[in-house]
Amino acid sequence: MSQSLDFLNPNSVAIIGASKDPTKRGFRAIQTLLQEKFAGAIFPINPKESEILGLPCHPDLASVPQEIDLALICTPARTLPAMVKACGEKGVKGAVVLAGGFSEAGAEGTRLEQEMVAAARQFGVRLVGPNTSGMFNTHKACNLVGFSNLEVGGIGILSQSGNMALSLVTEGQINGHMGFSTYIGVGNEADLQFSEYLDYFGDDEQTKVVIAYVEGLKNGHAFLESARRVCRIKPVVLYKSGRTEVGQSAAKSHTGALAGSYGVARGALQQAGVTVVSQSDQILSVAEALALLPPPPSKRIAILADGGGHATIAADALTEQGMTLPRLSQQTRERLAAILPPAAALANPVDVAGGTDANPEVFADCAEAILADPSVDALLIVGLFGGYAIRFSETLGPIESHTASRLGGMIERFGKPIMLQSLYAPMRTESLVTLRAAGVPVHESVERAVRCLVSLAEYGAARARIAAEQPAAAPAANTTASTVVSAARSEGRNSLLEHEAQALLKSYAITLPPSVLVSSPAELGQARDQLGEVPLAMKVVSRDILHKSDAGAVKLNIVGESEMSQAYAAIVKSSLAYRADADIKGVLVTPMARKGGVEMIIGVTRDPQFGPVMMFGLGGIFVEVLKDVVFRSLPLTAIDAAEMLDEIKANAILGGVRGAPPVDRKALVDLMLRISQVCLAHPEIAELDLNPILGYADGYTLVDARMILG
Amino acid sequence: MSQSLDFLNPNSVAIIGASKDPTKRGFRAIQTLLQEKFAGAIFPINPKESEILGLPCHPDLASVPQEIDLALICTPARTLPAMVKACGEKGVKGAVVLAGGFSEAGAEGTRLEQEMVAAARQFGVRLVGPNTSGMFNTHKACNLVGFSNLEVGGIGILSQSGNMALSLVTEGQINGHMGFSTYIGVGNEADLQFSEYLDYFGDDEQTKVVIAYVEGLKNGHAFLESARRVCRIKPVVLYKSGRTEVGQSAAKSHTGALAGSYGVARGALQQAGVTVVSQSDQILSVAEALALLPPPPSKRIAILADGGGHATIAADALTEQGMTLPRLSQQTRERLAAILPPAAALANPVDVAGGTDANPEVFADCAEAILADPSVDALLIVGLFGGYAIRFSETLGPIESHTASRLGGMIERFGKPIMLQSLYAPMRTESLVTLRAAGVPVHESVERAVRCLVSLAEYGAARARIAAEQPAAAPAANTTASTVVSAARSEGRNSLLEHEAQALLKSYAITLPPSVLVSSPAELGQARDQLGEVPLAMKVVSRDILHKSDAGAVKLNIVGESEMSQAYAAIVKSSLAYRADADIKGVLVTPMARKGGVEMIIGVTRDPQFGPVMMFGLGGIFVEVLKDVVFRSLPLTAIDAAEMLDEIKANAILGGVRGAPPVDRKALVDLMLRISQVCLAHPEIAELDLNPILGYADGYTLVDARMILG
Repeated sequence: MSQSLDFLNPNSVAIIGASKDPTKRGFRAIQTLLQEKFAGAIFPINPKESEILGLPCHPDLASVPQEIDLALICTPARTLPAMVKACGEKGVKGAVVLAGGFSEAGAEGTRLEQEMVAAARQFGVRLVGPNTSGMFNTHKACNLVGFSNLEVGGIGILSQSGNMALSLVTEGQINGHMGFSTYIGVGNEADLQFSEYLDYFGDDEQTKVVIAYVEGLKNGHAFLESARRVCRIKPVVLYKSGRTEVGQSAAKSHTGALAGSYGVARGALQQAGVTVVSQSDQILSVAEALALLPPPPSKRIAILADGGGHATIAADALTEQGMTLPRLSQQTRERLAAILPPAAALANPVDVAGGTDANPEVFADCAEAILADPSVDALLIVGLFGGYAIRFSETLGPIESHTASRLGGMIERFGKPIMLQSLYAPMRTESLVTLRAAGVPVHESVERAVRCLVSLAEYGAARARIAAEQPAAAPAANTTASTVVSAARSEGRNSLLEHEAQALLKSYAITLPPSVLVSSPAELGQARDQLGEVPLAMKVVSRDILHKSDAGAVKLNIVGESEMSQAYAAIVKSSLAYRADADIKGVLVTPMARKGGVEMIIGVTRDPQFGPVMMFGLGGIFVEVLKDVVFRSLPLTAIDAAEMLDEIKANAILGGVRGAPPVDRKALVDLMLRISQVCLAHPEIAELDLNPILGYADGYTLVDARMILG
Repeated sequence: MSQSLDFLNPNSVAIIGASKDPTKRGFRAIQTLLQEKFAGAIFPINPKESEILGLPCHPDLASVPQEIDLALICTPARTLPAMVKACGEKGVKGAVVLAGGFSEAGAEGTRLEQEMVAAARQFGVRLVGPNTSGMFNTHKACNLVGFSNLEVGGIGILSQSGNMALSLVTEGQINGHMGFSTYIGVGNEADLQFSEYLDYFGDDEQTKVVIAYVEGLKNGHAFLESARRVCRIKPVVLYKSGRTEVGQSAAKSHTGALAGSYGVARGALQQAGVTVVSQSDQILSVAEALALLPPPPSKRIAILADGGGHATIAADALTEQGMTLPRLSQQTRERLAAILPPAAALANPVDVAGGTDANPEVFADCAEAILADPSVDALLIVGLFGGYAIRFSETLGPIESHTASRLGGMIERFGKPIMLQSLYAPMRTESLVTLRAAGVPVHESVERAVRCLVSLAEYGAARARIAAEQPAAAPAANTTASTVVSAARSEGRNSLLEHEAQALLKSYAITLPPSVLVSSPAELGQARDQLGEVPLAMKVVSRDILHKSDAGAVKLNIVGESEMSQAYAAIVKSSLAYRADADIKGVLVTPMARKGGVEMIIGVTRDPQFGPVMMFGLGGIFVEVLKDVVFRSLPLTAIDAAEMLDEIKANAILGGVRGAPPVDRKALVDLMLRISQVCLAHPEIAELDLNPILGYADGYTLVDARMILG
């Protein structure tokens, strides 16, 4: 697929709408290409000019005597269908369409966009945009967006905002980050979509890490599939904006992108291996850390500090974000004690207590001892390193630089990441530049350094998880289930009745409580015989009554035949009072669920961006009030399901609280996997709701199951 | 009180332990004072030298012919009692003690510290430290910590970590912040404490805002009282580290400070008006914003952006932190439409859609229109401002600078804060420097700018709240309550029995359910007559049985005299089975609580740092598993109590969920205020637990009340 995107590495560029007006993109693009020494051919196109910036100007593409890889189209929206057709006729492989005024601007623009795309498809021209700030490829010196002082490097950027890309590039320039490979402003995604660019970046050898700034995804499911491929090879760092309703409306007035539920997006993206960052000011730092460092095998972090304040802040921040600080081994502590003064703290955090003031090389000696400890997965150094020449004595500068080289070498030697926070980071002192060049990320903020370490650990875990995933064969629909669905459809219903939903679930070997559908009082005795001498629940089965409790059509704790008869009559009466013409199939009789279960919900919906997604949460207030839910896209793996159980905030309740035993996780995971299969085998199920499920130490009870057909 | 701290503005300084060794503090301090042109007299003290750095060296303090305001003591711990005595004899007002090896280092150090403090008290010398990095006062050019390139300004710093102070100072130098007034490294607080320094800063005209880096407070209650005074006049920005157990242990190895529960500290500090920041990298930015800008009257923020990306991120971040984005008025939108191109978004966020590219002055025109809108309390500008000369054309630089001056003028004109985020912020371009000089804070990060606006709004509200507080007279203990306590004490008990706790609470007009203490089965009939024909709860009253349910000594839903007799017998039997020698006072009979109430907990404890604090939370899982609780120190005001109800995460439950009515907030607030009074009137109550309280639409029921005596 990504072969067709070779035009993003162009050897020749045409500027359609080339201009002599220095305020126009059609001038500035040529100027930039010349200034930055683009190695390929540049063809200005404008019928009214014969020469621009010393280059011959062609009246149209057809007049260009050579092949053209990429066209930058600077002309207004209305000209685009014709321009794209001309590109096609000339054999241009790809075009970047700057103009706005397409689908983001209303019905007329949408029509124009469709016409343009039709022309592109007809001639096999791929389109970037429209309504984009442009693109650049530093490795080709092809800068078609006009950002200045671009540094060549390994960060690829996909963005729905040109200003956000400019932010990242500028931040990189200021902070001395690793430089950029290719930027693509995705614009309206009229032809090429996020997922295709992502695959391109996955294959692009110049790109070591991908940053995506996303307001909304037109085809989230395709994006997830690409992400799952790319994240096995290189990290993808994504910031999703439009997380709140207010943000969404701001995003819509920007690019017209769909911005769905943030919870769904985050769950599905992380599942696919994507590193989702929640603060825009962390994007670049996290991306660089992920590109530079090996992920730690686990979450055990050591802190090395030349002062208590930073050590304490780092310890708090790491712990709050789920990392652990192992106590260093006796052997390590003895090694450190031999290096450091008596007042030093040796367990972790290690505080050198002035032991580096006169000789910062001691940092490297300590780091060696700490990294050799098998209980340590990564090292975070915090404090003043990099500024000893400023703080203490100029003579310490060269010693610091030597120390920096030694520290850098330890990453490969020990196979463990090292991160450094220094209050002198923005000064980019010589030793810090050396350290950075040796592969150690340098941060001013403790919190940002910690965020990077946490992201690195999470990426390592996610990469291992997705690498181990087997591509599951799409499950086939079974006949019983298909028959149930067809029967409901044939009655013109768009939902299954409860006993139908139960039959469908049973056909996928999902455990359900026994139940009997009774369609006349005469059958109650038989139901009782089947279910045994236990308290019963009875509820109406009717296509016309979805909210059975509200209709007074549910009766609980029924014991004995006479109570059953009374309940039956009461349910029918209430149902008809609720809706006089209700079509009553009968009454479903089932044993009361055991007491003491943990109330849970599992739901599946078809998300407009990401396709089928499963939600898990605890029942009642936890879902309705606290919104404590977690999402994953389907198909679900056993690891995904287990992660969902762990990820809700109130997860301790599943582990057993106030004397309750833990719920049966294995049974729940099995249920979730089967539900995933059901929903994939039956795309006709638009929504599925198991609410409540009662979880016990041994299994669960599905108290109610609903399915809506699409 | 703070008069005695005038020595922090010294006109003469003695350096005890002055040295010719350039690596020693006793040399470097003199060097710095000379280099930075300290205006007062400098007296090196060392019996072995006659001259240091050109200054005559005195053998001891007594030999100095002039008055000495401040002594910097650089000699080791063991010399300190004698040195402090010498200071006292010379009439030195205050001393900064650098040495470590005191209470942070064990029993011997603690003894030494006590001896030193005794000497200081005897002679009226005030001590900073020991175990401190030192202090500076830029307005006196008195730099006794050795940080270089200090800028004179309005930020005062109190810190338990010298490195954190150095971090803040360095960050200020790099980012062009407002400069510093005085820094004090509080060290071990052997004599002078956080609260006294805070009062000093409150009175210090040079200090516009106070930053405190706190690991633990020795006397939190005194700090709260000082904070309440100071926060009416100027903002106090505090970062509390040691928030997690791991962080606490890191903090302890640092300064030996107590680091208590973060929840208690945050609740109590915010109640006193303190701005508590949770990220160390936000401390300086928040402090500067609070010092520069007027707090907005409310939380309605307008965003002005030159690109959708930053606008969307800002809208998300503001909304997530409780701010609102009002839709701009018709009139404002018309004014903006007249200024901006047709594609601009006008409602809020305002996106100029290229309307500033050729003329950044348009920002000022838009800002004027937006700030004139009465629905707007504050303006956040995000995007590229400050970099138009870099991004678009050099000719735009002067226009931007002119715009910056206009924007600055609008803060006073409209009385509304303006905050700016620019991706060019770290470059400190001319226009951004102008803007900053005109009083508009400039940030690189959207999230940090938002944090500053939120803190500003919160400080405005807190300042108004504490300014309106009336100093409440300490409530007097009433006789009934005191008698109850004395009676329990006279029996050698350290807890009240339930009927005693009830009697005590009733004496403060707290509503309790009716109850009768029955001490023999013969009295049951009378109890029933008193309580009426309602289902009853019965529980044992015994000093020996605290966990009544565990002992099987609680019976519920008892109806009729025969059930009452059975229950009585069963309770006595279970109690004696639980503990054969249990001293049983009788059985408390009370009507069953109404169903459907919201379960809540109110507790009071005596915090080792902050004194009496009240906790509020929802019952059961919410407290035990989700730790969703909030704290305030006593005395409580009605506003404090209302804020506690609002601040728990599950506060929606109090408002009524799943068809339940809202709980009676007025009654709860009244209860909390009365409990506050009870605990203040009776310092002998060490702990009080109302658990559970059931809240209804009309009032509440206290189901169980426990009190532990100190």
